[in-house]
Amino acid sequence: MTTHALPEAWRRGLYETIARRRDMRAFLPDPIPHETLARMLSAANQAGSVGFSQPWNFLVVENLDTRRQIRAHVEQERMRAAAAFSEERRAKYLAFKLEGILDAPINLCITCDQERFGPAVIGKNTIPETAVYSTCCAVQNLWLAARAEGVGVGWVSILEPHVLRTILRIPDRILPVAYLCVGFVESFPEQPTFEAAGWLPRIPLKNLVFHDQWGDPPNSKLRCALEADQGNCARMSGPKTDDTSGIVT
Amino acid sequence: MTTHALPEAWRRGLYETIARRRDMRAFLPDPIPHETLARMLSAANQAGSVGFSQPWNFLVVENLDTRRQIRAHVEQERMRAAAAFSEERRAKYLAFKLEGILDAPINLCITCDQERFGPAVIGKNTIPETAVYSTCCAVQNLWLAARAEGVGVGWVSILEPHVLRTILRIPDRILPVAYLCVGFVESFPEQPTFEAAGWLPRIPLKNLVFHDQWGDPPNSKLRCALEADQGNCARMSGPKTDDTSGIVT
Repeated sequence: MTTHALPEAWRRGLYETIARRRDMRAFLPDPIPHETLARMLSAANQAGSVGFSQPWNFLVVENLDTRRQIRAHVEQERMRAAAAFSEERRAKYLAFKLEGILDAPINLCITCDQERFGPAVIGKNTIPETAVYSTCCAVQNLWLAARAEGVGVGWVSILEPHVLRTILRIPDRILPVAYLCVGFVESFPEQPTFEAAGWLPRIPLKNLVFHDQWGDPPNSKLRCALEADQGNCARMSGPKTDDTSGIVT
Repeated sequence: MTTHALPEAWRRGLYETIARRRDMRAFLPDPIPHETLARMLSAANQAGSVGFSQPWNFLVVENLDTRRQIRAHVEQERMRAAAAFSEERRAKYLAFKLEGILDAPINLCITCDQERFGPAVIGKNTIPETAVYSTCCAVQNLWLAARAEGVGVGWVSILEPHVLRTILRIPDRILPVAYLCVGFVESFPEQPTFEAAGWLPRIPLKNLVFHDQWGDPPNSKLRCALEADQGNCARMSGPKTDDTSGIVT
């Protein structure tokens, strides 16, 4: 029944990439080779999409003036968001570096055309948002490909879609889904930033899995397997730190 | 600058998995080992999430009566959707097998709690939907892990969230994002179903990439790299078919 499992080394490659992916906010200015960027975009383009509608576009933003405009808007939104936090947390929030729009050599805007191939797309009749869901799957593929290539990606979500549309001349019918900073990095941290900083705790996987009805726990065998894994499946036999420079081939 | 690139074999593992992932609708009844399912769920749980909010839950649906109710609803939606297609395409649409809800040994409902950790989550102030975007990234991680394990996943999107909530007793504040059929399969097809059937064409990647402003083509170097890749980066040196049974380790 497992005859279609991929070879051990390939499986490990996937799991290691998933475990080592991080949301990055600090970047080196080095340019990204075109071949590397093409592999990342190709990975995104191979995501599944509702009814094979392929609703995405990829806008590579290099122009510095454009990026300055976008960064100014993000900075406004960041200050506006600060008001939502308690006074104690606000200082900590404002101390976080949340984006590298100008540091990174490129930004990438990944958009969704909900009308691609017309209104009658298989599987999109009941939930129109499935086109956006497909676009997010493409983002995740790109994020993983970037990590495998040693390229950092930071998703900047504190910006208004209509502002991005104006600055990047994106038509009204197109939804900008992800605005990403993309570049090489000094290092990939072992833990997500907000976990390492004690901002929010990691939720144990076994608490997130239900069986048959919402709220009912999984059976004991699955619970044991989830506890044994602890969200760290790839790491059990892998190197302890992110420094893989010695094993790059 | 590429010192953080993962080893060649790991990179290939990721790209091969991305290239071989398919949306499946036919399944074998064989049960999925708990350890395999745990690795898939762990992969999902390692997705990035806005402000580290980890907004997802995973509901493993095994109960056959429950699945029969869900399938009956999907069948209704499928017939309703048929009306949107021209007469010529309608017959073809109705001939597609769109789900394996009862064939697969389990179904998985992946949900999003947009209120997890309260309303003040870093990065979610401007676009509340980012929690749903994060959940889709988790879905894609699970989909890739499943493929690596030789497990097929089919995303069923022709169902109403409120119907799923009722049948699975999911609270109103929780959005069911993905309803997946999960099981071993006879084979993974070389091409996506709708591409192979001539339903919709694959869009050349170079047509989907813009530079600096919407509609402006990428520079000639990137265009060449995109054309060389043709959405098939992992396949260039890989086996021609999906039959990897001979190289499973």
